[in-house]
Amino acid sequence: MTTKMLLSIQSLMRLPLSRLSMVSATRCLSQSAWACKSAPQVPPALWKLGRLNHVAIATPDLQASTALYRDVLGATVSGEEDLPEHGVTTVFVTLDNTKLELLHPLGENSPIQNFLDKNKSGGLHHICIEVDNIKAAMEDLKAHKIRCLSKEPRIGAHGKPVVFLHPKDCAGVLIELEEV
Amino acid sequence: MTTKMLLSIQSLMRLPLSRLSMVSATRCLSQSAWACKSAPQVPPALWKLGRLNHVAIATPDLQASTALYRDVLGATVSGEEDLPEHGVTTVFVTLDNTKLELLHPLGENSPIQNFLDKNKSGGLHHICIEVDNIKAAMEDLKAHKIRCLSKEPRIGAHGKPVVFLHPKDCAGVLIELEEV
Repeated sequence: MTTKMLLSIQSLMRLPLSRLSMVSATRCLSQSAWACKSAPQVPPALWKLGRLNHVAIATPDLQASTALYRDVLGATVSGEEDLPEHGVTTVFVTLDNTKLELLHPLGENSPIQNFLDKNKSGGLHHICIEVDNIKAAMEDLKAHKIRCLSKEPRIGAHGKPVVFLHPKDCAGVLIELEEV
Repeated sequence: MTTKMLLSIQSLMRLPLSRLSMVSATRCLSQSAWACKSAPQVPPALWKLGRLNHVAIATPDLQASTALYRDVLGATVSGEEDLPEHGVTTVFVTLDNTKLELLHPLGENSPIQNFLDKNKSGGLHHICIEVDNIKAAMEDLKAHKIRCLSKEPRIGAHGKPVVFLHPKDCAGVLIELEEV
């Protein structure tokens, strides 16, 4: 399909190009004429952004950070959980509407060690936003030249498919997408 | 009141010292014997942490960052709002359970310019957590040697009292408390 065709479909459907991926256009054209005719004028997006699942905070001192949120700020916190396959130990801080995820390096090749080398006191590491269809999101993002840090979704710390987006393509912010 | 007395009260009430401030102990002791006797064994805390109000993202290119969240990620975004008294222009990104606040410097003495000088692409700047009583929170935090960046709450970007906590006392994270 040419860009011209895609622009034409976009114009007919009054959708911004950014939310009408090649995937959705292809899906419509590959269906029967009847199916396309009977479809609503504005088809649903193939994927949708949802809740902020968590804000991740890297810390060089997990006990002190846990104590801060539990004992000083009065939040409910989980126990420590070692995730050797992810190279981190985690503690979750429950807020009324979302979670903070405290991260501490585990093992020699922890993915957060580099961050802590640059930020000795720790700091805000990434945000995780839920999506309903991670593969559709990845295809759409690729079309917008937003790089994913892995070619396929991986199973994240919560046992669900996740992917990280390149911070240089996201205003300097490391964004994790998690399919829920 | 001596530390010994406070520890004794803490022990009796089975509360962690951290959540039983001098303020709450003083308040109980200054009430009548009847009032203290009839009070529940575990008194309510004088302040409570609530929702994550927003995650603030500093960006050197507000239009590009807004377009990323609106056009690529499909989120609802607000218009730009200049807040000269805070030295920033803001755009809010609505997620299902909270907000992202995009911040761009406004004027010559913007409080986020220093951050952007160090983080050229932008990045996660602070998190804002709601509290129900900001003055009680500040007094409690002071007792725990968590420094506030102002002596009194200030009126924040949303017209409500806010205070920022020193990142060096909060595991490297700049935390804003907002009274709602």
